[in-house]
Amino acid sequence: MMAFWKIFFKHHNIFSSNLNNQLVNQDAADKILLVKYLEGRGTIVNVYLSFNSYVNLHDLEKLCDSVGWVRRPLKKVKIAIDNSFVTASLFYEQNKKKFLIGFARATSDTSFNATIWDVVIHPDFQGQGLGKMLMAQIIKQLRYEDINTITLFADPQVVNFYKHLGFITDPDGVKGMFWYPL
Amino acid sequence: MMAFWKIFFKHHNIFSSNLNNQLVNQDAADKILLVKYLEGRGTIVNVYLSFNSYVNLHDLEKLCDSVGWVRRPLKKVKIAIDNSFVTASLFYEQNKKKFLIGFARATSDTSFNATIWDVVIHPDFQGQGLGKMLMAQIIKQLRYEDINTITLFADPQVVNFYKHLGFITDPDGVKGMFWYPL
Repeated sequence: MMAFWKIFFKHHNIFSSNLNNQLVNQDAADKILLVKYLEGRGTIVNVYLSFNSYVNLHDLEKLCDSVGWVRRPLKKVKIAIDNSFVTASLFYEQNKKKFLIGFARATSDTSFNATIWDVVIHPDFQGQGLGKMLMAQIIKQLRYEDINTITLFADPQVVNFYKHLGFITDPDGVKGMFWYPL
Repeated sequence: MMAFWKIFFKHHNIFSSNLNNQLVNQDAADKILLVKYLEGRGTIVNVYLSFNSYVNLHDLEKLCDSVGWVRRPLKKVKIAIDNSFVTASLFYEQNKKKFLIGFARATSDTSFNATIWDVVIHPDFQGQGLGKMLMAQIIKQLRYEDINTITLFADPQVVNFYKHLGFITDPDGVKGMFWYPL
C-alpha cells in the first residue's frame, strides 16, 4: 500500500502508466480497486474503481440526473447493466460514506468488438482526469479480454476527449449510423 | 401457404410490408422462415431466413471469403455468435441442398441499444433486395425486443444502402469512434 501511495505522490497524476499496470488484474471484475490522488487544493481524495456489475440503481439515476440525462426506467437500466460485458463505477469516499461519481459500461460479443455506452462523470469531479482514468481502465480491461475493436458514439462536445484517449472518428470513411423508431 | 405465395406473386418484390408482418413472430429465434420470390429471369427461388444462432462456421467462413473479408479464427467467431443477441442467416435452397448466402448479427444490452455487425450477402445474390430484407427483419426483431437505438458502423460504399433503410449518419453531430491497439 505504501508503494502504491508513493506512486501517486510522485506523479501528482492519476493517469500514470505505472498505476494503470497495478490496477487491472485477472479478478478485476470482482474487486474494488483503490485510487488516491491529490486534489487541486492539496486534499487527499480516495476514489475507488469497481468493475463489479452490482450498481445501486438509485445512485446511478442521481449521477445521470447530475449531468442532465433523460431519466430511463430503472428496470430497463438493470437489464442493460446485467447484459453489459464490462461495467465500471467510480466511487468517492468521504467520512466512510461512498458516493457514485462516475460510470460507464460496454456491450460486447466478448470476442472481437465492444461498444462503450453511458460514460458519465459527476460535474463536481470533471476536469480532474477521472473520466480519462475510467476510460483507460475500461480499455485495459477489454484488451485483457482480447477485444481488438473498441467503439463508441461520442457527442460533439466530447469527441476531442476521446481523441486524446486514442479513439479515431470515421477510420477509412467508416461511418457510425443510427436507426430510431419513427 | 397459398396465401403467402400469392403475396409474392402479386408484389414481385420481397420487401413488401405485408410480407414483413408475416415473417417475424414471437418464436422467430427458433424458426426457419420461408421467403419465396421471383428472380429476374422468372425462376422461383426459395430463400430461408433463420434467427437461430446455430451457424455452420465453415459455411460462414466460405460466405465471408466470397466478399473478400480477412479470415478470422473460427473459435473466436463462435464465441462472438454465442454472445450476440440476434443472429440472422439467409439460406438458398436448391435440389434439397442448403447454401448460406447471407448473414448478420447484433450485439446488445437487450434493453436500450443494439449494434449490428458482420452484414454479408454472397455476391451472386446481391442487388436483389436480400440484404434489405435481412436488415429489415433484424430491425423488426430488435424492435420486437423493445430495443430503441440500433447502431452500426458502415463502410463508405454501403452508407447509402443503410440510409435507404432509415439509418442516419452522425445525428446531432454524434460521431462513431474506434479504438484499435497500436
